[in-house]
Amino acid sequence: MNHDSNILKLKRLGIDTQREYFVYMRSDCHICISEGFEALTRIEVTVKGETIIATLNVLQSELLQDGEASLSESAWNALRAEEGDAIAFSHLQPVGSMSHVRSKMYGNKLGDEAFHSIIADVAEGKYSNIELAAFITACAGDNLDAEEIAGLTKAMVAVGEKLDWGKGIVVDKHCVGGLPGNRTTPIVVAIIAAAGLTIPKTSSRAITSPAGTADTMETMTSVNLSLEEIRRVVGQEGGCIAWGGAVKLSPADDVLIKVEKALDVDSEGQMIASVLSKKAAAGSTHVVIDIPVGKTAKVRSQVDAKKLEFYFRRVGLEIGLEVKVLITDGSQPVGRGIGPALEALDILAVLKQENNRPKDLEERATLIAGALLEMGGKALPGNGQSIALDLLRGGAAWKKLRAICKAQGGFREPEPGKLKHEVRAVKSGRVEEIDNRRLAKVAKLSGAPSRPGAGVVLHCKTGQKLMAGELMFTLYAETSGELNYAKMYLEKEFENIIRWAPLA
Amino acid sequence: MNHDSNILKLKRLGIDTQREYFVYMRSDCHICISEGFEALTRIEVTVKGETIIATLNVLQSELLQDGEASLSESAWNALRAEEGDAIAFSHLQPVGSMSHVRSKMYGNKLGDEAFHSIIADVAEGKYSNIELAAFITACAGDNLDAEEIAGLTKAMVAVGEKLDWGKGIVVDKHCVGGLPGNRTTPIVVAIIAAAGLTIPKTSSRAITSPAGTADTMETMTSVNLSLEEIRRVVGQEGGCIAWGGAVKLSPADDVLIKVEKALDVDSEGQMIASVLSKKAAAGSTHVVIDIPVGKTAKVRSQVDAKKLEFYFRRVGLEIGLEVKVLITDGSQPVGRGIGPALEALDILAVLKQENNRPKDLEERATLIAGALLEMGGKALPGNGQSIALDLLRGGAAWKKLRAICKAQGGFREPEPGKLKHEVRAVKSGRVEEIDNRRLAKVAKLSGAPSRPGAGVVLHCKTGQKLMAGELMFTLYAETSGELNYAKMYLEKEFENIIRWAPLA
Repeated sequence: MNHDSNILKLKRLGIDTQREYFVYMRSDCHICISEGFEALTRIEVTVKGETIIATLNVLQSELLQDGEASLSESAWNALRAEEGDAIAFSHLQPVGSMSHVRSKMYGNKLGDEAFHSIIADVAEGKYSNIELAAFITACAGDNLDAEEIAGLTKAMVAVGEKLDWGKGIVVDKHCVGGLPGNRTTPIVVAIIAAAGLTIPKTSSRAITSPAGTADTMETMTSVNLSLEEIRRVVGQEGGCIAWGGAVKLSPADDVLIKVEKALDVDSEGQMIASVLSKKAAAGSTHVVIDIPVGKTAKVRSQVDAKKLEFYFRRVGLEIGLEVKVLITDGSQPVGRGIGPALEALDILAVLKQENNRPKDLEERATLIAGALLEMGGKALPGNGQSIALDLLRGGAAWKKLRAICKAQGGFREPEPGKLKHEVRAVKSGRVEEIDNRRLAKVAKLSGAPSRPGAGVVLHCKTGQKLMAGELMFTLYAETSGELNYAKMYLEKEFENIIRWAPLA
Repeated sequence: MNHDSNILKLKRLGIDTQREYFVYMRSDCHICISEGFEALTRIEVTVKGETIIATLNVLQSELLQDGEASLSESAWNALRAEEGDAIAFSHLQPVGSMSHVRSKMYGNKLGDEAFHSIIADVAEGKYSNIELAAFITACAGDNLDAEEIAGLTKAMVAVGEKLDWGKGIVVDKHCVGGLPGNRTTPIVVAIIAAAGLTIPKTSSRAITSPAGTADTMETMTSVNLSLEEIRRVVGQEGGCIAWGGAVKLSPADDVLIKVEKALDVDSEGQMIASVLSKKAAAGSTHVVIDIPVGKTAKVRSQVDAKKLEFYFRRVGLEIGLEVKVLITDGSQPVGRGIGPALEALDILAVLKQENNRPKDLEERATLIAGALLEMGGKALPGNGQSIALDLLRGGAAWKKLRAICKAQGGFREPEPGKLKHEVRAVKSGRVEEIDNRRLAKVAKLSGAPSRPGAGVVLHCKTGQKLMAGELMFTLYAETSGELNYAKMYLEKEFENIIRWAPLA
């Protein structure tokens, strides 16, 4: 093969395809013809010595002149390409590790090496979205046993960067989601750091929920911290609340999570590997996992929660993490807000110890903080929660959160969406049950988490009496299309969201 | 929502993205902003009253003017769009049937209704490639039981068109692939139609192999027949060999097969449903399934073959098909050619009864034809194969194939690729074993099936002695890039493709 004949000149077309890299070539391009490239072929493209894998889209029009090619924006940026750069093409060697994925599809057990090769290829961007979806699906449900989850976790740690704090004890926490509004993290970090322990917290953005901790925190300060900045903030304040995706602690996980989100699925093995790989990479030694259990929470029964507890502890053991699991009540939303800014307002009410603060959120945050204080040797067994409450009441935690936000780039007040829609009780009655999943869906349809001010504020709790005309909840949105979309869903599903018993 | 504000004007950019529909909008478009559309959002787009679902790509450049939008070529053609047409946008209702796919991912059993709603959505193009990959993976391996496969099969038949021949007995055959060169179908159809039975054969293109029957047949005649043309050809000649994808007998299957191909996977349940749904839709009543068994064939053991036999018969029963399974030897390739045109040359040698015809191909074709003649009442039990051989030797089958090709649009001679590379024995020895999978891969790398003349001609069989310098096989290709790519693989893997014992 003559190498020169495989080179074209780059022209920028400015097509944004998100993460997946695309390369654009003319259908009559001599390289397409001689190499046998067709639309959707995956090709290795090289610009200025850097190589990535891209999917081919063929242009039937005159957008490109003879001798020109283009790249999607993500690929253009990844290669730091400039107009007129030379671009070279070669056949993609088949992704070898897909044979392990196929083996898993057929129900075989994968060993550590198989996971290492899959995860290394995923982190390098060698998997197409279709292949990622197959890997995620093959590992979903009960398809991974504890050894396989440990193998996946170790592989995820191995391909990322690691933090080392040079200290004996470094603590962390994680909540297995599914409970709208359960945003304890910023409060826990503030308490723990105020107590003098080290807690380098990285949080995720939402996968299938209306808000992740990183989304919520971002309405108050910057969360896109580099590893260097995390080191500085934690060195200075003892804790931070950063977006995990901005650092490369688990680069493979960042790739997988996007496809999980598109599939609206969050599988057990992937979830455990995702959580523990990030804790290990962040240099933690002691971790509390909060598992809320409820009919419409992510975990629906005590049996499922116990099974998860077993996996978390077992995989923790394999990778050198001490794990304590708290199984908590997940029967209804926590706090009032559901959506990034609306949840942030709840957090601030607790930290500022306002009179109308959501007490359930305060109770949960101090329970978790208490367990961490005990693990970290800052409280005697059974004494943790009351020490946590003291740090909250005395104002130390609120002071610490402001200090952390300042170190992360400055504190700002969260802002709810400008568009509102109030939902009131049509007749008097009592709230019997609230469906977390459907309520989360209302918040998502109104724009959360990509619109930070969007979501739902819930004004009632299970068991509460409401008189006709009283406020049940309020929708917030930033665009009218999204507000209408949420209202349409609400009209159809209202009776399934809040179960209601008329007053006798 | 003001409807008019959701309308843009179409401009053709000519971007070919194959099957998946894409819509292109400016990043500063008011609809993107007000509706909350982002790159990769799936949107309903309507042109002249026709609606499809498309994935959004956002343009950061001046390819589109303010007020303009564009569609990928597949979407443009599906909507019969014209330059300047109005295009309207609305939010996609979440694809409801994905909840069944997620349920399957978690190991639950799906009922008939679940399969119906999934397959209807797939056939209507509502699934993204990621969602299709998840469905295929969730149904792979042993994940479907016989009832579920029957449910999937019935769903596939229900969404497609159906043929009705108004006759008591209509026969068909299918081979569970994996055996390179095993191209018996055109010979079987010619024999059966010559015997006066009805055999409306639709065949697939290759999924993961170097050639499907439709690919092979297309090197001799046209296979893109409409249902009308199939009715005419079969009415006239008793049989046809058409590409199943050109008619809509199983439209969902046509969508699924493309993603299966990208994943290089062909799962058991999907395979059975794919095969039997097409037979049922084609109006067949009696079907012979050939299952070759061999270490490197698709089915590797008698136990696996027996299991498949059970499923085929059981699902056949549920949908009213009488199924006979033949378990045959799959230890090495059949005939000499591997690749569309090269396999067609073998078929012609058998039909013309040339002296150097591949006897193994003839033996297999007459075995299957014999079983069909017996099922169809044209031969007494045990007598079918000898009647089939008579029809071949007397020239009736060859005459019938020419007549079928003529009715399908005319017969032409298949042409091998212009580029050749001969592989000769380096030293004298005996062929101990041939790896079907690796040999198929060589043929695929040289361009088969998309380049019809590409592939491999095998000059030796297992057990055969070859002297140093004798020809082992020949590569054929149509482009030098592909020939080189096949040669590179050959250099690396040669010893694994043909196991060789030096002569003592």
